[in-house]
Amino acid sequence: MSTSSEINDIEDGLSFQPRYDDSGLVTCVATDAGSGEVLMVAHMNAEALRKTIESGDAWYFSRSRNSLWRKGETSGHTQRVVEMRMDCDQDAIWIRVEQTGAACHTGRRSCFYRAVTPSDGGARLSFVDADRLFDPAKVYR
Amino acid sequence: MSTSSEINDIEDGLSFQPRYDDSGLVTCVATDAGSGEVLMVAHMNAEALRKTIESGDAWYFSRSRNSLWRKGETSGHTQRVVEMRMDCDQDAIWIRVEQTGAACHTGRRSCFYRAVTPSDGGARLSFVDADRLFDPAKVYR
Repeated sequence: MSTSSEINDIEDGLSFQPRYDDSGLVTCVATDAGSGEVLMVAHMNAEALRKTIESGDAWYFSRSRNSLWRKGETSGHTQRVVEMRMDCDQDAIWIRVEQTGAACHTGRRSCFYRAVTPSDGGARLSFVDADRLFDPAKVYR
Repeated sequence: MSTSSEINDIEDGLSFQPRYDDSGLVTCVATDAGSGEVLMVAHMNAEALRKTIESGDAWYFSRSRNSLWRKGETSGHTQRVVEMRMDCDQDAIWIRVEQTGAACHTGRRSCFYRAVTPSDGGARLSFVDADRLFDPAKVYR
């Protein structure tokens, strides 16, 4: 358990103290610096966070590939960080980015290309802004 | 491991198939439907997601309190969902909300009231939009 003074320091202090989860990760939300659209949600470990802060380019940690990765290193669709914010309990990062091309590996501008609406006591998806800017089969071999 | 056809269905299908983590949670990003500002990052379990879809009010699952919670049930600072989106691999939700008052339990409009900037090979925080809209000591007893 955290003490009150530790919580106060994390929430109201100006010390950068990312609180990584059991896998050593924080959640990162990237939004388009122009439109405000949410482009993607991904994870950063300490090294990805450090490289992002130092370079101004977004780096992430891929849980599925278990590796550090610079956004756009394969596709060329990089993210330039305009502003980085930390949340109250320091376990989530928000970056406002200038996105080159598409943020999503499926070729869409944003990973959030489907809306969720109620349907028959459950929910269904529908495409919104789902045009592909690139063909993933050609970009990722 | 997922097969290619399962991945295709999850990424390019219109079937609502949230992929919960080992704790039964998906990540949810809430943004201000007007300004696009990221208000908070939290988690939903299947029940929180169902209640959010059914009611149009945001429900979350608190990991620290291990309980379901309707946003604003104590503070009155509710979130009305204007649009819900699902991401490519169906493990993250984006909701655009009409936020009553403040989203952050510290009393700020957004949980992201501190900017991160490089400093001496590391980073430091600085307050941005950090005015409190309410006094948490009075709201949460």
